[in-house]
Amino acid sequence: MLTLDYANCLSTRVGPHGLDPARVDPNGRQAQGIAELTKQLNASRGTGWQGWRELANEPMRSAHLNAVHAVANQCEGRFDNIVVLGIGGSALGNIAIQAALNKPTYNLLDTADRPGPRLFVVDNVDPDNLQAVLDICDPKTTLYNVVSKSGETAETAAAFMIVRNALQERIGKKWSTHIVAITDPAKGTMRTICDQFGIDTLPVPDGVGGRFSVLSPVGLFSAAMCGIDIDALLGGAQAMDKRCTNPDLTKNPAAMLALLLVELGTRKGKTNHVLMPYANSLKLLGDWYAQLWAESLGKKYDTTGEVVFTGFTPISALGTTDQHSQVQLYREGPNDKVIGFVEVGEFDSDLTIPTGMGVEALGYLEGKSMIGLLNAEKRATEYALVESQRPNFTIKMPKVDAHHVGEFISLWQIATAYAGAMLGIDAYDQPAVETGKKATFGLMGREGYADWLTKVDEALGETPYTVK
Amino acid sequence: MLTLDYANCLSTRVGPHGLDPARVDPNGRQAQGIAELTKQLNASRGTGWQGWRELANEPMRSAHLNAVHAVANQCEGRFDNIVVLGIGGSALGNIAIQAALNKPTYNLLDTADRPGPRLFVVDNVDPDNLQAVLDICDPKTTLYNVVSKSGETAETAAAFMIVRNALQERIGKKWSTHIVAITDPAKGTMRTICDQFGIDTLPVPDGVGGRFSVLSPVGLFSAAMCGIDIDALLGGAQAMDKRCTNPDLTKNPAAMLALLLVELGTRKGKTNHVLMPYANSLKLLGDWYAQLWAESLGKKYDTTGEVVFTGFTPISALGTTDQHSQVQLYREGPNDKVIGFVEVGEFDSDLTIPTGMGVEALGYLEGKSMIGLLNAEKRATEYALVESQRPNFTIKMPKVDAHHVGEFISLWQIATAYAGAMLGIDAYDQPAVETGKKATFGLMGREGYADWLTKVDEALGETPYTVK
Repeated sequence: MLTLDYANCLSTRVGPHGLDPARVDPNGRQAQGIAELTKQLNASRGTGWQGWRELANEPMRSAHLNAVHAVANQCEGRFDNIVVLGIGGSALGNIAIQAALNKPTYNLLDTADRPGPRLFVVDNVDPDNLQAVLDICDPKTTLYNVVSKSGETAETAAAFMIVRNALQERIGKKWSTHIVAITDPAKGTMRTICDQFGIDTLPVPDGVGGRFSVLSPVGLFSAAMCGIDIDALLGGAQAMDKRCTNPDLTKNPAAMLALLLVELGTRKGKTNHVLMPYANSLKLLGDWYAQLWAESLGKKYDTTGEVVFTGFTPISALGTTDQHSQVQLYREGPNDKVIGFVEVGEFDSDLTIPTGMGVEALGYLEGKSMIGLLNAEKRATEYALVESQRPNFTIKMPKVDAHHVGEFISLWQIATAYAGAMLGIDAYDQPAVETGKKATFGLMGREGYADWLTKVDEALGETPYTVK
Repeated sequence: MLTLDYANCLSTRVGPHGLDPARVDPNGRQAQGIAELTKQLNASRGTGWQGWRELANEPMRSAHLNAVHAVANQCEGRFDNIVVLGIGGSALGNIAIQAALNKPTYNLLDTADRPGPRLFVVDNVDPDNLQAVLDICDPKTTLYNVVSKSGETAETAAAFMIVRNALQERIGKKWSTHIVAITDPAKGTMRTICDQFGIDTLPVPDGVGGRFSVLSPVGLFSAAMCGIDIDALLGGAQAMDKRCTNPDLTKNPAAMLALLLVELGTRKGKTNHVLMPYANSLKLLGDWYAQLWAESLGKKYDTTGEVVFTGFTPISALGTTDQHSQVQLYREGPNDKVIGFVEVGEFDSDLTIPTGMGVEALGYLEGKSMIGLLNAEKRATEYALVESQRPNFTIKMPKVDAHHVGEFISLWQIATAYAGAMLGIDAYDQPAVETGKKATFGLMGREGYADWLTKVDEALGETPYTVK
């Protein structure tokens, strides 16, 4: 079970840069407010854009697991590669789960040593990147997994159109049997395409926005294809969800996590929120967290319509690696951050540093375990941050397995719901993305958007301000 | 040649969140100060910790190129894998250059399709990660490239000791012929080890700190092994260096870049500095930049000894991908950022989005180039940021090749030297890292550090502040 140590966020540890322990006292006024909020979230769960909150519970859980396993079973043995085409919430979760739960060398292993096909995720319209993937994936043995609720996301649509053409050229009419789409079950452009060409689909359920979709078929299908235990993933998520219905702040990890970050952010100026796992496998969960935290909480208006320009800047780091890159800034730069460590108890390998090097300066390492060194460095960094009065907390994960990764995902999703409510904003919209989409349509010559081209050209005209 | 467009950093574009154009007027008072600073940097170049500034110039350039090519030539054909063991500045540059200049699928290509052995960089003491690399790299055909000036960096030393043992077990006495060390040419623990066992070495030159070492053998050797044109890399760096000796601010890209970021940071509260290339290949140069900018400028004291807690938080992003993750925050969150775009003119592939999809909503994409879409999205995002009064600039890179990547690296290194001088701090030390190192020694039981163990245990004792 994941635990959350937050002593280093309190003034007793980091002085005026921390919170007064009274703010987290289970009998204090603040805790009463949180208990109320928990009751509200418990009552509204599953409604509107909180549909994601039911993904790990019945009946959705079994429905999705059955559907995903059915399609994955159909595909079994047919493909050497699976290529996900998606962007943002349709890619970050897939990448993160794969990195967390399969080996870093997964794609390099022989087929017999891998639990599934090689996985590639194309989440950009970079031509060299897509070309490199096309070059290496024989269309005859490649499955493309298109992930788009509407089908109109420009990046995903462009990649899909290129891939469809390549498949059609190489395998003819059967091209559609090399595609599994995850899309709206009832409407939209991708739905129409899938119906027309008989493409297999899995649903993006109602009330599940992109950044809250990793535990839906969006994240589950590619994971299942790569041999990840998606049942255990949802099991972990459900276990965490249950803990996060507890009105007692001190027993509810999501409520506490949100409270710490929101209060340190809004009352103490700690607006940069670093997630720094001490395990390579968890690094890309940092990118997934970064979308969730940035896009959900970065809002101009609160729900009353007042201009607030609120939100926090998520930063993905890695220990020990970033001790040699970012920790100098974290300790001596502006005191504007909260550092969230993730400490892992048990690894699959336990390499021991051998004896016999015969060099005095390195003698202290001989015979020690690598895990021991890794976690000593984490504790030493935690100490150094406390000494500099920099607030930090530690999520302890007993082992990086599907159950605990499910817990971790659920923890941050629910914490985001809490944080949105605490900030008084809508955590589920992304209004600021619209302008760029419309301007892109204008620049690409889409009918009806010519005025956007004019606007862009007027705003970004030639100036003398270029160093050349 | 790289260019720098900075119109969107000025108040004429982004209102009160931008700089007054007078601050960058070539005839203004500020420009005179910068001209003075340029003269100082020109006069002191190559001295003290500015040794890195001469890496792309003769005589160092030829000396290093010859030495690196000589060792690389000796290794040619002998190895299927090269594994770099290093951390921080001894790894980030290697990773970034490889990602920029070789295909994303490089390690997956057949030997005949690759210009060199597979490359792995082990820059953490994560046991599962190292074990996965050991499992996949047959010791008989693997070269280990240990990068450590002193040899005492705990992470690198631990990995080296494990690897040495594995090599010795598998290939016996010849183990040392599977190692190339990049280390201090005259002194230190690694030097002693290399002399004792006859390990081939290349130098970390004097006056070149870790984060300024990518253009020394530290970065050049693994690049050369993987077929990268290191002569062109240094050629590009030299060309940029020359431009950055110009006292005219408006013709000196590094001086202008530093001025914009320092002034926006210190006068306008834009303390988060995002680097957002629109090209997958440049994404990991963002991690390299993040170390350079964070560790050089994040300082508690200025050079007069006054407490300043200065520095900026570097953030590595990727377009278009992060439009679907971070841009909501960048436009509507706190106005505390400068966004630095990198726009690439030409890619190797120019995929065209095919016609014939037959879906009205996607018709505007048909027949367009993928590069066109990528750069339209960049321009649209630039527009959207300007509309929200968020300062941003664009570095234009004609093509991602060795020459231009050399320019890019040099630009940021010299900009860092300027920024350090503008902030009045020492850009070349990293005093805050020492506490963590000593505390690690204490926790690992190194002789002479027992008091650090006590300090850590006292500071981080048990508390009730855990959610479990």
